[in-house]
Amino acid sequence: MQRFVNNPDEVVEDTVKGFVKAHRDIVRLAENPRVVVARGAPVAGKVGVVTGGGSGHEPAFIGYTGRNMLDAVAVGELFSSPTAKSFHDAIREANGGRGVIVLYGNYAGDNMNVKMATKLAAKDGIEIATVVANDDVCSAAPEEREKRRGVAGEIFMWKIGGAKAASGASLEEVRATAQKAIDNCRSIGVGLGPCTLPAVGHPNFQIEPGAMEVGIGHHGEPGVRVEKLKSAAEVAKDMCKIVLDDHNLPAGSEVAVLVSGLGATPVNELYILNDTIESEISARGLKIHKTYIGNYFTSLEMVGATLTVMALDDELKPLLDAEALCTVML
Amino acid sequence: MQRFVNNPDEVVEDTVKGFVKAHRDIVRLAENPRVVVARGAPVAGKVGVVTGGGSGHEPAFIGYTGRNMLDAVAVGELFSSPTAKSFHDAIREANGGRGVIVLYGNYAGDNMNVKMATKLAAKDGIEIATVVANDDVCSAAPEEREKRRGVAGEIFMWKIGGAKAASGASLEEVRATAQKAIDNCRSIGVGLGPCTLPAVGHPNFQIEPGAMEVGIGHHGEPGVRVEKLKSAAEVAKDMCKIVLDDHNLPAGSEVAVLVSGLGATPVNELYILNDTIESEISARGLKIHKTYIGNYFTSLEMVGATLTVMALDDELKPLLDAEALCTVML
Repeated sequence: MQRFVNNPDEVVEDTVKGFVKAHRDIVRLAENPRVVVARGAPVAGKVGVVTGGGSGHEPAFIGYTGRNMLDAVAVGELFSSPTAKSFHDAIREANGGRGVIVLYGNYAGDNMNVKMATKLAAKDGIEIATVVANDDVCSAAPEEREKRRGVAGEIFMWKIGGAKAASGASLEEVRATAQKAIDNCRSIGVGLGPCTLPAVGHPNFQIEPGAMEVGIGHHGEPGVRVEKLKSAAEVAKDMCKIVLDDHNLPAGSEVAVLVSGLGATPVNELYILNDTIESEISARGLKIHKTYIGNYFTSLEMVGATLTVMALDDELKPLLDAEALCTVML
Repeated sequence: MQRFVNNPDEVVEDTVKGFVKAHRDIVRLAENPRVVVARGAPVAGKVGVVTGGGSGHEPAFIGYTGRNMLDAVAVGELFSSPTAKSFHDAIREANGGRGVIVLYGNYAGDNMNVKMATKLAAKDGIEIATVVANDDVCSAAPEEREKRRGVAGEIFMWKIGGAKAASGASLEEVRATAQKAIDNCRSIGVGLGPCTLPAVGHPNFQIEPGAMEVGIGHHGEPGVRVEKLKSAAEVAKDMCKIVLDDHNLPAGSEVAVLVSGLGATPVNELYILNDTIESEISARGLKIHKTYIGNYFTSLEMVGATLTVMALDDELKPLLDAEALCTVML
């Protein structure tokens, strides 16, 4: 295992410590060392915005903490949900007296722990709303969207939810807008190589050399098919077809595009994928407002990439473009 | 080879096309498809700022094109210098009538081609200056600094040179400040795994499992020693010792820190390294002004990381903090 780690059981602790040291101007650690808080949070009179999730997806989730973005983030172990206590503490750190929204991904552990945390927060007298991201197209059929996992579309949900909250909107307004943002997202992942949890020491799933897994999840959850590794252009066409067929947007729609590496794919190959992705999206008569390319939402050293397409409207577009400061360029 | 490529001989073409499509708001392609130009460049009356280098280091070099940053970038094949023609065309694209500076790395091909390009540009009547980056500590002894390679310190040189040019400084002023920026940088790379040029199909060097190479270059150039892979804390201590001993800064100095992944190292492990790096730097009585962590200067899917430390002064600090817009957060 060719990796930079200390005690494999303390990967998350070391990760968070090193992250906070690097970005002291933007974030601070809460008393609970599994909660990262934006400098200046809570903001009195602003809806607090919270997320949380398993570690190993850096810069997600902690890297999106910041001004006009996430006020607080609950940190889980590698690929594991944060505890209910950490979600609860994150909610308290984000509470500026106008309610707190938790914008998180659809995973069993997160669902359970957010539910418990919101009950505890309600007892504290904090008004709570939640939005559950479910943008991963291949994880369930269209008619069961509520079963789909949340993946990189969460970044758009956070940016838009954060901007809406910063605009002075009410809790219900932030909820409705963040919900619309994630409703407007569709994502797909393609995996070419697995990843290894340091404490386990061997890959948690296999992808044979020469093969690829279409529709893979952020933790190696099985995709919809394993097939022969194709050219970048063919892979990009497949990704676009799956995402855009599910999206079924009318021609002329404006979209935002996010192409994220899963951890060990060279950055230039994300550009190569985008060459075809841009053409495919344009060929459907869609207009690309903005494209984000890089390691935005990773899975340790998994080889692969994800594509997220978000449909924009007159409300979402300026919120996506609003000024925000976190550790990642958005 | 688990990679997203089309024709392996067209990796660079596809990379640049996909990059420009993603970032049309910031960059454009010159008539020469191996030259990326900032939107709005050339800026009349501003010193033009140019770099160039081999591909495979994305987001370097093209990703740093932008406003108050690089005006034009010459693009080479994977791990190969851009041609003299491409450097020359980049200089012409950046020329706003007040001279052009080429800020590039110390590699034989780049040296030769920049020299030829500057001669051609001089014939065009363009006043030219150059600064050669040589921040890679392990590539030559301190008394032969001019033999050292340029690595991630180039990013600081570009940011500061770009900001100085944007301030309205003369060519000689930009040259002197960019030279000071790179003189103030020291970098080191540690490699845990090799990378493969798609057209070659096998790694261009080997690092045995369980080993690491200290002082490795961006193209797998041999380091100063191969040894047993240590813990992240030990690796970080080694990196700091090598960089800071060479730097020999007086206590109280302010520094900027850049921890970059080489392509396939998980982002969270860069944070883990930084946990110790920050402690080591602070223990020497140095004050960290700003830390940058991520895949800033990569080598395809090489496993490993680099550390760059730049000493700041009253001139460099505001230039580093100056507003700039490129595709990477700086």
